[in-house]
This record gives sequence, structure tokens and C-alpha cells, in this order.
Amino acid sequence: MNRTALFAFAVFVFGSGSVRAGADEGMWLFNNLPLETLKNRFGFEPDAAWSEHLMKSCVRFNVGGSASFVSSDGLVLTNHHVGSDTLFKLSTPERNILENGYLARSNAEELPAPDLELNQLLNIVDVTDRVNAAVKADMAAGAAMLARRETIEAIQKEALDQSGLRSDVVTLYGGGRYHLYQYKKYTDVRLVWAPESATAFMGGDADNFEYPRYCLDACIFRVYENGQPAKIEHFLKWSQAGPAEDELVFVAGNPGRTSRILTVDALKYQRDVRMPFVMNLLRRREICLQQFGLNGPEAKRRARDELFGIQNSRKAYTGMLGGLQNPAIMAAKTAAEARLRAQLKADPKLAALDSAWDEIEAVVAQRPDLLVKTPVVNSRLFEIAEEIVQMLEEDQKPSGQRLPEYGDAGRESLLQQLLSDAPIYADLETALLADSLARLAELRGGNDPMVEAVLAGQSPADRAASAVAGCTLADVAARKALIDGGIAGLSSCKDPMIQIAIAIDPEIRKYRKVADELAERERQAYAKIAEAQFATAGASTYPDATFTLRLAFGTVKAYDENGQRVEPLTDIAGAFNHQDTHPGQDDFQLPRSWNDAKGRIDGATPYNFVTTCDIIGGNSGSPCVNQNLEVVGLIFDGNIQSLTADYVYTDEQSRAVCVHSSAIREALRTIYNASHIAEQLGR
Amino acid sequence: MNRTALFAFAVFVFGSGSVRAGADEGMWLFNNLPLETLKNRFGFEPDAAWSEHLMKSCVRFNVGGSASFVSSDGLVLTNHHVGSDTLFKLSTPERNILENGYLARSNAEELPAPDLELNQLLNIVDVTDRVNAAVKADMAAGAAMLARRETIEAIQKEALDQSGLRSDVVTLYGGGRYHLYQYKKYTDVRLVWAPESATAFMGGDADNFEYPRYCLDACIFRVYENGQPAKIEHFLKWSQAGPAEDELVFVAGNPGRTSRILTVDALKYQRDVRMPFVMNLLRRREICLQQFGLNGPEAKRRARDELFGIQNSRKAYTGMLGGLQNPAIMAAKTAAEARLRAQLKADPKLAALDSAWDEIEAVVAQRPDLLVKTPVVNSRLFEIAEEIVQMLEEDQKPSGQRLPEYGDAGRESLLQQLLSDAPIYADLETALLADSLARLAELRGGNDPMVEAVLAGQSPADRAASAVAGCTLADVAARKALIDGGIAGLSSCKDPMIQIAIAIDPEIRKYRKVADELAERERQAYAKIAEAQFATAGASTYPDATFTLRLAFGTVKAYDENGQRVEPLTDIAGAFNHQDTHPGQDDFQLPRSWNDAKGRIDGATPYNFVTTCDIIGGNSGSPCVNQNLEVVGLIFDGNIQSLTADYVYTDEQSRAVCVHSSAIREALRTIYNASHIAEQLGR
Repeated sequence: MNRTALFAFAVFVFGSGSVRAGADEGMWLFNNLPLETLKNRFGFEPDAAWSEHLMKSCVRFNVGGSASFVSSDGLVLTNHHVGSDTLFKLSTPERNILENGYLARSNAEELPAPDLELNQLLNIVDVTDRVNAAVKADMAAGAAMLARRETIEAIQKEALDQSGLRSDVVTLYGGGRYHLYQYKKYTDVRLVWAPESATAFMGGDADNFEYPRYCLDACIFRVYENGQPAKIEHFLKWSQAGPAEDELVFVAGNPGRTSRILTVDALKYQRDVRMPFVMNLLRRREICLQQFGLNGPEAKRRARDELFGIQNSRKAYTGMLGGLQNPAIMAAKTAAEARLRAQLKADPKLAALDSAWDEIEAVVAQRPDLLVKTPVVNSRLFEIAEEIVQMLEEDQKPSGQRLPEYGDAGRESLLQQLLSDAPIYADLETALLADSLARLAELRGGNDPMVEAVLAGQSPADRAASAVAGCTLADVAARKALIDGGIAGLSSCKDPMIQIAIAIDPEIRKYRKVADELAERERQAYAKIAEAQFATAGASTYPDATFTLRLAFGTVKAYDENGQRVEPLTDIAGAFNHQDTHPGQDDFQLPRSWNDAKGRIDGATPYNFVTTCDIIGGNSGSPCVNQNLEVVGLIFDGNIQSLTADYVYTDEQSRAVCVHSSAIREALRTIYNASHIAEQLGR
Repeated sequence: MNRTALFAFAVFVFGSGSVRAGADEGMWLFNNLPLETLKNRFGFEPDAAWSEHLMKSCVRFNVGGSASFVSSDGLVLTNHHVGSDTLFKLSTPERNILENGYLARSNAEELPAPDLELNQLLNIVDVTDRVNAAVKADMAAGAAMLARRETIEAIQKEALDQSGLRSDVVTLYGGGRYHLYQYKKYTDVRLVWAPESATAFMGGDADNFEYPRYCLDACIFRVYENGQPAKIEHFLKWSQAGPAEDELVFVAGNPGRTSRILTVDALKYQRDVRMPFVMNLLRRREICLQQFGLNGPEAKRRARDELFGIQNSRKAYTGMLGGLQNPAIMAAKTAAEARLRAQLKADPKLAALDSAWDEIEAVVAQRPDLLVKTPVVNSRLFEIAEEIVQMLEEDQKPSGQRLPEYGDAGRESLLQQLLSDAPIYADLETALLADSLARLAELRGGNDPMVEAVLAGQSPADRAASAVAGCTLADVAARKALIDGGIAGLSSCKDPMIQIAIAIDPEIRKYRKVADELAERERQAYAKIAEAQFATAGASTYPDATFTLRLAFGTVKAYDENGQRVEPLTDIAGAFNHQDTHPGQDDFQLPRSWNDAKGRIDGATPYNFVTTCDIIGGNSGSPCVNQNLEVVGLIFDGNIQSLTADYVYTDEQSRAVCVHSSAIREALRTIYNASHIAEQLGR
């Protein structure tokens, strides 16, 4: 891989995405699709019904992924690695669903997920004017933040009361626009089918973010209403043959976060401070979870899901940071910013906007301290304790004045998570808490008053062991009793995890306040930068990703790497060959179901493919559809060259990686004896 | 394990080791043995011949371990993990000695190590007065450091010229004493026998620093002179039965470093700054090496030896830091320091010494910046390039004014390492260099001038790839030519690794100068603290470890953990049981040689045992002997409770872990068909 070549020859689009001819860039809002571009470049003119059908066929997994309805009776298709949180929670030492897969032979065998919430987007309303009207020009950042927060909560609560729909106000263009997103919620979600992790994640950490690939990174859920499979009006059909090379395709999903609007100062902070800091944390957790797994097969099973997520993030961050450390990228970003600022200064109507970059510089200078001081504790029991403590405290205030996550509008979703009966493993909790407490002591020093209060005279390891052993919150009833007891019961609560949360909470709040105020200042500054871009780009644009529904377009397309053409499609025979060429490497061994079916399945069946669609983390599980809105693939990864997409998109080598629709159908039929599911796809 | 209990009930000996009755503390100088203690507590009175024989039977591995002569014709016993550097260098893809072991059936089959230097200590002379005479009271730290360095180099050079022996001046008591150590060097060292790593390191990272244990962490070399097995006058006999429980035993070896003299300010710096910083580096290297190993079995083999060392350090540091983060330990250290300082202030003759603590506080405050800014690059090719660049520059000066490692006295040993033909793997080098360059950019920021010069416009990964691909220094002849070309050839050298070294060297030198001056100020301050301890402890003391020969004493002793008695000895049958109780865990599977021999070997043969002897890293491979100077064991580890020994010794639970002499003899005879070696042991 020659990444210098990639960036040396690419033209950088900086900030947000003013579309250049030839570039398949953009994570487009469903209420502002790139219709002109699609018409001009591809001769394709989707109508309103097309986009409404696609929008309503999409499903968001609130744990951090995307999905789609693929049958009239509620089948939901997503990635194995998006479903894995649920697969893990449904697993036991005796029935390791995450590792060995699952197939429901009938509706009765479909397994209810303990705490999934799926969202179907029904409606988008621009509420920018109302949100901005609440903020007066002379307000300090803190007051502006509170006024904005109160208005947003009021809009959400009104919308919820009127419609009964989950109603979220989304900040777009870094603060340039505010849109109200309204979702139908599905909370009775059941597992229908999942393959073995060995095939879903073939090649493991080594192949992750690489291409060619051979992964069946798919699983299928079904949504229920009133105890019956839900009747779904908008669902996607299943393509007969999948996509042809160079065919126009679309990805509809929820990209989590991009930072393409960031100023050079903000990028340098990411490069020199935040990303190295986060990577130290990721490596630390990776080692901690690996060490825990050494205690035996059951310990390894308990740690596996979180370990996978950490390794995935660590590899992604490595690629992202590598991009930012490339002098050519930073030089291009710097030059683009200088050009834009020069353009503003030359135009009296726009010159005032230039101060936004200085404001970002000032905000960024305050971030390193915030990063180090904000307490982070990685333990589910601690999270539960901290949420209960904060909720009981926040509930003393009117909804609009609370921290947003404790407002009335979101209470139902909050409680669903907080009262989940997903298993909590005391041994794993102890290991993770010990590591988190040690890290707190490292970052703040062993003589920091909060650290001393938390440790209560014990070493981090001993304090973690005693706190987990004495904690009652693994029991959902104990959580409920504590919540019902209200603020009065909190002060007399003897639970050591609650006591730790009470010791840490003032510092969490202190730095949360700093963070919120800095974020408000950034919103105001980036709103100006967005305005500058609207004014100078002269074309439609898309905002940075916000884990809300977006449309990306592109083609199924080969690329060059080290002078070699990388074919856009792999096939099933390639998976067996990939196994055979990696003897003695566990991560490359297909499960028994595959090796048993080798003689029966058609090796020429297409397996994985790549497209130029502009995606990022959060898009995992997104449907890839053709112009007729038939599923042709399932997004599950980006190649290594795509990892800089957080900051910059190029379609020279950057590719989104999909499971081919035919591979899913054929695997269900031939490998998993699940024709009854295969027959339902698209019907 | 309840580590709070351990430390809450222990009495702390702070600073250096004034011996309390009952404590088996101390890493004693061979020219100042604790004869009084041995006589009073054990009724044992070793004479001068005893200590001379033991001293001359010991061998130091300069790669960082200990060993002993165990036969008249040059057999040297050490740990598998001390020999592993050589086992790795002797391995090839086809003959993986590190993993699969080795046995020479005759002298002709003994394999020459590419670059081992073994040292046998022959002589110790106190040169404190001469070293201190060079430093005048009114000298600034920089001048004092240079004057001291020049005198030390002169002493070493004189001693070398007079005796032909390797002559090292060692700084003891943090600067309170200077002793000249003179060694006979052995550089023709050949591998005789090594077992499989699966038995040497049974239980892997999970069992490391734990007890009970079942490890044959041993291997045997032979020293040669003039092409023949060396005739050895001082070697250890082999015990017939090994040690009995509670028997007095001794460990003679080279503990690497302890920090028991550190002030509380220095300990807080270790706890809050240095150790977290080092652990981030260790975790980073661990992940980097693991990732590299994912490329396949050969990559895994190439990374394994360094990965083992990193994991070992990471686990040790975790335990050490956990101890320092224990409020009880720090409180005890603080109280002891306050008592000592109060004692000084109350005594007019000693009161002036108290300023030493303030001086350490001032020095410590300058260390964080030094830590972050000092360039560290983990690549063998870079090390070679940097050493050549520095050596050619330093050689422009008289020997006494050079950086000490480039003085004439040590040139032969330096060149042996620098011109070693041990294999260098370009793929591994590229991965490690890329990670090091990325880390340099993170620590100094991407716009740091040195970083920009090193990267030369490329991303860290691309720069590493091009530098390794273009580097000629894997070839020993190219190194030699460059050295022979002298300083004149350097400036025209096109080798990219040399160019990177030239770009980094000024910064290495800049921070080396700061570090040397801080070290000089610390030496002067700790010399005062040592003086304060000599004056108040009223008993013989031992200095902190310096990777020079020390004697520890103790008994073979059970201990309590979580209320359970941990037996001091394990046996061979236990190893098979340990395998059987960890199914599916690769690290617990004995090699085929063991499973084949299960019916033949006596399961009751003692295998590993623990003693209270005060050891630390560097002691690995040390002989454990009885009063008759017969080998009863081979040190290979400490238990987890011993990991705070860097700062504090207790014998409540802290134990040194040994391979039992009988296990080594019986394994050679019965498992490895190596009776010809077993018969030579002790003869």
C-alpha cells in the first residue's frame, strides 16, 4: 500500500462537501439530496416516493449501527458486528451465540434481545430559526448553551407529546442548522439468524479494514409489535443478481461522526493531543481485556465482544492518525483554509466570519486539560451507578434545565438501557474497574483529592474488588428500588459503587460544564464557517456526519494499490482459498458449517465487493441498494485507505466494503439450512 | 490475593537496607557481606574462600541476566528467557530453536552465539576517594559531571591496561560510593541445550509472576577459549537432593535496578509520571508486535522474543505501579522519610544533609519534560546508525571527554555488539520504525522541526518503509566500511537510516546532556542521603541494585495468600495436572517430549520452589545454592507480591521463584535424552 501516492495526487475538498465533478463524495441529508449531481453524472432522477421509501426502509441500531427492513413481516438485516452486542448478551457459557451463531427454525425460537432499540426515521423538520432565536447575541457561552438546550428540549418534548414519536433535534453543519428528526421506535427485537463469528470476521484483526475480504458479516433480527411480527410497509426488495461492476449504487445509513469542517488548529489538536491520548486508552483496554481472557475460555468469551470493538477502534484510529501525520494532507488542509480565509477577507460582506477560526483556536487551546481531567470509568456497574446518581439529581430540576440526556423526552429510552437485564460479569467488571481506577490515579496523580476519595485508602485493584463484590446493582430490582427511592435514599445508600459515583460525579459535572461551554463556542464558530462555505462554495453541500440517516452514492469500482489492480468483487471460492493459504492461523479458519458445505455451494457466488460510496463508522449494517431500491449488498467495513474519511474523502483508492446480497441468500440456503429465511428476503 | 493486607501489616524499611531481625532483606555487596546477620540468625559463618568461590562461579549475561559455571569444562547454566535473545538469533524459519529447543549431542554440535559476552567478576576495588577528589565543591552540575566522567574513564582505562580485564567503575548508594569491578570476559559462547519454550514458559503471560509454577526455565551454554571448552577453576557443585523446606539458601546474581533510596518526591514522580508514561510505551509496543505477528507464523516467530520481553515488563510495571498507587505504601514511605529528616534536623552534625531532599524535589520537577522530549526509536537498524554516528563524532575527542559508552575502555565490547551478524528482519524493522516515528510525532507534535526533518515529507509509515528499504546497515561489512570511513565519510553518506540518525542525534544529545546533569545533581544529593542513612541506621547496609554481583540470603518458605497456605515446592506430576486443568489454552500445553516421557519420569521429582531471597529483574538465571555452595535451584521469577521490590522489600508474601536442581537433572536424563549433559553438572 502506498498511501503517499494516494494523498499526493488527490485534490482535497476541505470543510464540508461542495461536490466536484467526478467525486462520489458526500453523506447527504434526506431532505437535501444531491439530485442535480445524480442527474448530471448518472442521468438518474429519483422522485420523492423513491427517497421516502428508502428513508423509511432504513433502521438505526442505537448501539451504534445501521440496518434495513428486508421483509413485510419485520425482518431486519444488519452486520454480525452490529448485532454482536446483543449476540453477546444472549450468550451463556453453555450457548455461545456470538461465537457459534444461531438459527431460529420458527418464530417461536426467535430470541428477544434484552435492550435493543431500533429507530425508523419518519420525518425531518428544519427548526433552525426557533433554536437560534433563543440565543441572544450578548449571551456568554454558558448562558447561550443553557438557552439553546432548553429550547431544544422544549421542541423535542412538544414533538413527542404531539406525535408519540421519538423526537431528536440534531445539530448540523457544526451548528449551522438544527433539524428535528422523528422516529418510530421498535423495542421488541428478536434474533432470527447469526452465523459463526469465524465467518463473519474471517481474517480477524489482520484482515480488518483490508481488501480483498471474505466475510459473512451479517445477521438478521425481526421486530415485533404486540407480541406478533410487525407488519412493515416500507421494506427493501432483494436483488436477483446483485450489482455489476461500475453500476451506480446507494448506501443509506447513519454515519457516526466526521470532522471535515475542522479548522487546521482543530486538526492539529486531534493529531498531536486527542488521538494519541485516545489511542493510549484503547491500547490499555485492549491489553486489559486480553489479560482478562487469559484466565480461561469462559473469561475469553466474556471479554470478546468488547475486545473486538476496542481492536476495531484501535486499528481505525491508527489509520486516521497516520493520515493526519502525513505532511501532505496537513499541507493541503492548511492551503485550502488559507484560500477560504483570504476569500472572506476580500469580501466586506463576509469578512466578519473570519474571526471564527480564531475562536476555534482559542477553544482548542483549552481542550488538552479537559481531556486529561474528565473522569472516565469503564465499568457497566459504575455507569449504572453514575446514571442513577445523575438522574436523581437532575430530576430535581425542570426537564428543560437538565443535562439533555435526562430530559423527559428521552426518559423511556434511557430507562430501557438502565434497567436492561443483560448479564454483568463480576470478574470482568473487577478487572475493568481496577484498570480504570489506576488510570484515574495516573492522570490526576495519586494525591488528587477525588482519587483519594475514590480509592478510600485501598490500592486500585483492591478498591475495585471490594466495590464490585459489595455492589448490588447487577440486580435490576435493586436499580429500580434505588431509582424509586429518589434523591432522599441516595445519601444513605451503602452500595460502594454508588459511593464511588458520588465521589466522582462532582468532577464529571465540573468538566462536563467546561465541555458544554466549549462546545457552544464551537457551535457558534462553526456556524460561521458553515455560512462562509455556503456563501463561497456556490453549490449544495452536506454536513458532517451526526449518526443520523444519510444517503451516499457511488459505483462498484476497482482500484489500484502498489501498481496492482484490486478487483471489486470476491467470491465464495476465494474464501476457501483464503483459508487454505493461511494454515495454522486460527482467524483464517472457516467454521465447520462452511467446510461441510464446500461441495454444495457454488464457488462462483459473489461474496464481498467494494464501492466508492462515502461512508464511515456507524454506516455498518447499511443497505447498499441499486436504482430500483433492491438490496445488492450490506456495508460492513471500509478499506485501509478510507480511514482518513473522518477528515477528508477521496475516491482514488478509498472504498466501502459490502457483503454481496447473493452471498447472504446462498449461505442461508446452502450452508445454514435456512431456506425459510432466504425465501422471506425482500418479500 | 489481598495486597493491602500485605502492606498494611509490613514494617517498611525505607531508603537502603538496615537489616531488621527476621527480615531476609538485602542485595549485598561481595566486599561487604552481612556476616554478622548470617552468624546471628543462622549460625552460619562463611569464610573468605567461600565468598571468593561463589563470586568467581557466577557469570553475568550482558544482555541483562545472571548465570553460573556448573562444570569444570565450561558449562554455564542460565534461564531459557535469559538465553532467549541468543536462541532467537540462532533460529531460522526452518530451525526454530527458541520455540522447539536444541540439544548438542557432542561438542561439535554446540552452536556459537553471534554476540554474547559473559563476564566473570574477579576483583572489586573501592575508588570513591579518587572519583570524588575530581569534583570540586564549587563546580556546577555540568562541570562536575564531566570531571567525574573523565576520572572514571581514566580509572577504567588504567585498570584495563594493567590487567587486560574489563574494568567498570560502578556508582553505589546513588553516588555515595564508587567501586571498580574487574571481569574476565568470555566471548566464545556456545549453545549446548535448551528446552521448548512451551515448557520453559508454561502458563505464558497468565502464569508469569504467579505461583505455584511449573516451568523448566533453563538452558545451558558452554564457554570456549582458543576454540576449546574453557577450563574453569571456580564452578558450582550440583546438589544431590535440592533444598529442604526452611533451609537457608543463597542467591548470587546481578539484580538490575532497585529504587529503595528514592525520596517521596521521586516516588511520586515514578507513580504519577514516569511509570504511566513507560506503560503507555510498553502497551504500544506490545500491540505493535502482536499486530506484526498477525502476518503469519514466520512473522510471529520474528516478533516473539521481543514480545515476550515487553509483556514481561508490562506485567512487572503493572505490579510495581499498583504498589505505588496503594495509599498505605506511600503513607509509610512518607512517614519514614519524615522521621529520618526530623532526626537529621535534631542533630547539628547532620542537619546540613537535609537539603538533599529539596534538591531531589527540584531535580524531579525537571524530569517530565525530559521524559517526553528525549527521542526514543525502537529499531535495530536505527540503533546501529545512531551508534555509528555518535561514535564517529565522539572519537574526535580524547577518550575521557567522550560519552562514557564510547571511551577506549569499553570499545571492544561495543564493537562486538555493533558488528554482530545476528539477523535483522526488514519487515519487522519497518513496522517498529513506523510506530516509533509516529510516536515521535505524537510526543513532539507533527510540526516539530526534528519530526519534520525525520519524516522528510512522508507519513511515518511511508518514511519507515523507504528508510528500511534503502538502508544498507543490515550488512555487517557496510557497517564496518562506514566506521572505517570515519567522520569524513558520514556527511556524504546516502543511507536514509544514517540521515534519520543525523536528524535526530542533536536532540538525543541535547536531552542526554540535561539527563546527565540531573543525574549528577541526584548523585550528589543521594550521596548525602546515603550518608544520613549510614549515620543513623547504625548497621551495615546494602546499596540499590546496579546490575552488578550481589548476594541475597533467605529460606525456602511457604506463605499465605487469601488465607490459604501456598506450598513452597511443586513437582513434575503437578505440571501434567496443570496441563490437564487448562484444556484449550495453548500456553498450558506441555510439548510432545514431556507428554511422551510422562510414564518414565518420576512425578514426585520436585519442580519449582520459592525462597524469601531479595531479588529483582537481572537476577534471572542466578544460581540458588546451599551452604555448601551446591546448586539447589535456578532463579527465574518473583511472585506477584514481589513486584514492589523495586521500592520496598517485605518477606511476608514476597518470594523468589526457582527451578529445582533435581528437575533440571531429571528432565535432561529422562525427557531430553541428554544424560551426557546431566552427568557433567557439578563436575
